[in-house]
Amino acid sequence: MERKKMKVVIIGGVAAGPKTAARLRRLNPDAEITIIERGKLLSYAGCGMPYFVSGDVPEWKKLTDTPAGVVRDTVFFQNVKGIRVLNRTLAETIDRNNKTVTVVHVETGEKQALPYDKLVLATGGMPVHLPVEGVGLNNVFRLWQAEDALSMNKALSMGTLKKAVIIGGGLIGVEMTEALTKRGLQVTLVEMLPHLLPGLLDPETAVFLTRYLRSQGVEVHCGERVSCLKGDDRGNVEKVVTTRTEIPADIALVSIGVRPNSKLASDAGLQIGKSGNILVNDYLQTSDPAIYAGGDCVQNIHLLTGKPVFAPMGSTANKHGRVIANNLMGMEEKFKGILATAVVKAFDYNVGKTGLTETQAREAGFDPVTCLMPSSDIPHFYPHARQVFLKLIADRKTRKILGAQVAGPGEGVKRIDVLATAITFGATVDDLPGIDLGYAPPYATAIDIAAHAANVLRNKIEGLAFTLTPMEVKAMVDRGEDFIWLDVRSPDEFKQKRIEDQRVKLIPLGMLSRRLEELSKDKKIVPFCKISLRGYEAQTLLTGAGFKDVQFMDGGIEAWPYEGISEK
Amino acid sequence: MERKKMKVVIIGGVAAGPKTAARLRRLNPDAEITIIERGKLLSYAGCGMPYFVSGDVPEWKKLTDTPAGVVRDTVFFQNVKGIRVLNRTLAETIDRNNKTVTVVHVETGEKQALPYDKLVLATGGMPVHLPVEGVGLNNVFRLWQAEDALSMNKALSMGTLKKAVIIGGGLIGVEMTEALTKRGLQVTLVEMLPHLLPGLLDPETAVFLTRYLRSQGVEVHCGERVSCLKGDDRGNVEKVVTTRTEIPADIALVSIGVRPNSKLASDAGLQIGKSGNILVNDYLQTSDPAIYAGGDCVQNIHLLTGKPVFAPMGSTANKHGRVIANNLMGMEEKFKGILATAVVKAFDYNVGKTGLTETQAREAGFDPVTCLMPSSDIPHFYPHARQVFLKLIADRKTRKILGAQVAGPGEGVKRIDVLATAITFGATVDDLPGIDLGYAPPYATAIDIAAHAANVLRNKIEGLAFTLTPMEVKAMVDRGEDFIWLDVRSPDEFKQKRIEDQRVKLIPLGMLSRRLEELSKDKKIVPFCKISLRGYEAQTLLTGAGFKDVQFMDGGIEAWPYEGISEK
Repeated sequence: MERKKMKVVIIGGVAAGPKTAARLRRLNPDAEITIIERGKLLSYAGCGMPYFVSGDVPEWKKLTDTPAGVVRDTVFFQNVKGIRVLNRTLAETIDRNNKTVTVVHVETGEKQALPYDKLVLATGGMPVHLPVEGVGLNNVFRLWQAEDALSMNKALSMGTLKKAVIIGGGLIGVEMTEALTKRGLQVTLVEMLPHLLPGLLDPETAVFLTRYLRSQGVEVHCGERVSCLKGDDRGNVEKVVTTRTEIPADIALVSIGVRPNSKLASDAGLQIGKSGNILVNDYLQTSDPAIYAGGDCVQNIHLLTGKPVFAPMGSTANKHGRVIANNLMGMEEKFKGILATAVVKAFDYNVGKTGLTETQAREAGFDPVTCLMPSSDIPHFYPHARQVFLKLIADRKTRKILGAQVAGPGEGVKRIDVLATAITFGATVDDLPGIDLGYAPPYATAIDIAAHAANVLRNKIEGLAFTLTPMEVKAMVDRGEDFIWLDVRSPDEFKQKRIEDQRVKLIPLGMLSRRLEELSKDKKIVPFCKISLRGYEAQTLLTGAGFKDVQFMDGGIEAWPYEGISEK
Repeated sequence: MERKKMKVVIIGGVAAGPKTAARLRRLNPDAEITIIERGKLLSYAGCGMPYFVSGDVPEWKKLTDTPAGVVRDTVFFQNVKGIRVLNRTLAETIDRNNKTVTVVHVETGEKQALPYDKLVLATGGMPVHLPVEGVGLNNVFRLWQAEDALSMNKALSMGTLKKAVIIGGGLIGVEMTEALTKRGLQVTLVEMLPHLLPGLLDPETAVFLTRYLRSQGVEVHCGERVSCLKGDDRGNVEKVVTTRTEIPADIALVSIGVRPNSKLASDAGLQIGKSGNILVNDYLQTSDPAIYAGGDCVQNIHLLTGKPVFAPMGSTANKHGRVIANNLMGMEEKFKGILATAVVKAFDYNVGKTGLTETQAREAGFDPVTCLMPSSDIPHFYPHARQVFLKLIADRKTRKILGAQVAGPGEGVKRIDVLATAITFGATVDDLPGIDLGYAPPYATAIDIAAHAANVLRNKIEGLAFTLTPMEVKAMVDRGEDFIWLDVRSPDEFKQKRIEDQRVKLIPLGMLSRRLEELSKDKKIVPFCKISLRGYEAQTLLTGAGFKDVQFMDGGIEAWPYEGISEK
């Protein structure tokens, strides 16, 4: 590889920036590399901030140190990496004709013009502003930069704050719900859209998370817009007012989203996309060939739709950094795109998503077929087997997997990673069950739940299984429709837990063939069991016996996310 | 789908058999399905037996019940599934001309001839016999059928057995090492080949497991063949004699492998393969088109070599069952093959493998390039971050991933599943780092360790990184070669833990460029750090400064599996 004496200036020192610098240094010992960073420290673990606030990460230093315990300051970068860092420094303007960046030190106000051969913009994202009165009150926070986490922690450390309101039920909102609850606060989570993690989950998956958070003592308000925040006479926040109610608040966090930080680029006349992102080509090169951009300030191509999507993620920023460094060295590497995968821990609940939701799949012109499968993550007999709800989505025509969602205490994230990998390679529902995944009782069931879900989708696509989702059944109930809600579990299971509804009729699967005369052939029959494997068998048996209108309820009673369950 | 009044007889009631029956029943309500099973119960979780012996599964019933707690007896199969089961029954002969199977009840001796349209052989595997004196002594067990686990448990329950010897360091041997240690016994594990889990792990991965098992109080003897077992005058086993030593034993377990149970098939004139397996085509059809076979009695095609491989696994047996049922219904589904994936828990250590080992890759004609990477499974700042050693193997020419091995307390099994998925789709080292895996601090590092390992392999293939494996360095040390073993960690890290060898020289990476004159350009230099990321940077720096013979040590001090480490 050519060792060019190139001057590279990188603006942004959190994820994509330092990654570009480190990779470039390894590829080219002679490059002059300068990172411009507004903060004091570089390459700190921004994604770890909620866990600093929660107390899981006991000291801030842990987020700024290398795994070997060395602080990532300017001296470290200079001595260990041979990378010059100007910290506490802002980039003010880019002069593309003369190839210089003017920077200013935030404390001294001192300015200088830095010449570059190549410039890298890793300016990140910035929080979306909540345009209501009261966001400037004391104890109203956002979680963007190190300072935010530190001042929030300081406020919490006084021990006087009791009630928290988190505005925005996205990833940060959910992580901070856990964090603030762990700090002993009563937390209310407010989401403007009809359910939590909108854009990540379909409604029936989100409802599991909502139900679980409530079981942990969290108040969840969905479909409520915040009108204003009100304070006391000392200017401290006192309540959050929504379109429906007023919620007492000693502390509030605004986390309603992120947008690309592209002002510097736009001022320099670089092309900007519809979301305010810096436009880049497949090589992460901006409209100026001497300038690259990566991380949260750009959009990515969604691998399934081929269309741009804004899904800021530290993992993507790191991938960008490597690709940019390679391209700076002329290696011509493309960044192919993303699946908008996201995973989030909420107390002991694991939630994740990859690919498209059912809603997104429909919008993108696919014909989605879905299954909602509650299952044990490992064999039920092994200790610590835990429940996972897996929703798998495929395209009816091409049979390609389009997306997956998990929610539950069980190991769902592993399946998200497997499915993200499979989707990347264009896997169909027919490919998935054949994959030789690791099997032993501590790790998986003999047929992994992801494979099992794919088999269910094959049955549905091939017309072997006819199903209704819990949402569809709920709609039928709400419309007051008449049907036989056929519980085919054992009397014992029925005694333990059942749906309280007059339409419900118990005939255990083992008795079904002998008790067919109890069922009317004129009525729709909706069989179900615990997870609807027996529900499926009942459908097969009934269809075989000449019943015409039989559709089992997807996921069984375990996947029923609504009220109306009585449990012993 | 056609509802044929077909008669299907299935021989074998553990995994492939019941799976075939259940799928066939759902596809065809009119088929007459009969399962022949030697044991009392069907479809029990054979893979759970070690966890019954360990006490993790508190009662045997758990292994035989459905998740809903219903025992899987003949009545259950008849009433719930509509499947006839003849248990305690052996299949004696197959009359292929008249399409009948003669069966005999093991208690009454009663015989009957069962007619079939299609026959399914799911006769499983059987333990390889240890051909030495003394295997018939009391308290010498194998772990094959339910009876074995139950009688072993009974012997242990007396509380008088103190010392156990496990003969065979394969999957069952390792699982049973944990089980018997948990039951309070002093366990010695004896493996004939030079390292544990031969065929699954390369030597340097296996050595981590060995070292860990020793840390748990287990004695491990590798490269020792058992010559005989000796007993006392009551016929109870007293010691296990190997080619090197005598090991006291109150109880012994023989687990030296499994071979296909194919006598019935061979007696019936069906074609048998070299490993004694029943020969099947891609549709799992034997040389007689009316007879299918699946599970541990057949071989599979290895997806990477295209050659047959015998790798019995409950997960594969279940996959076979579904494919056979589909083919019985004329759906013409191929079973494509396996990656010989295996995962095993040993106390708090997770060990796994998919694809080919380096040794197997070489034998199969590939040109393997490998990396051994010790890494934290999640960010080091998050609580419960744990170490994983990942060995990744790719083909230098095609750049395709060939295999992976993990060992360590960290979450390695997830990465095995991801890599098994990637390999299934022919992923290269260039594909892997782009996959949009789930990232959040509780689950993964921003660049997942599997992606990181693939990047290391890219560097190696492209000639950017030059490495020696710990095995290669150990061989140099053993040959007494002169080289500079350059530790580039910090003085603090060095104080905590270091390799005690006169060749070792400490120059922290941050000082290296200023202390080059301390290094001779005539000597080979082998830099390393904790995990050899800084080792790689040192190599880049030294090569840049004109040093010609520099190769960093793969995986750093964390991957050094040998003696000679001093730790504070």
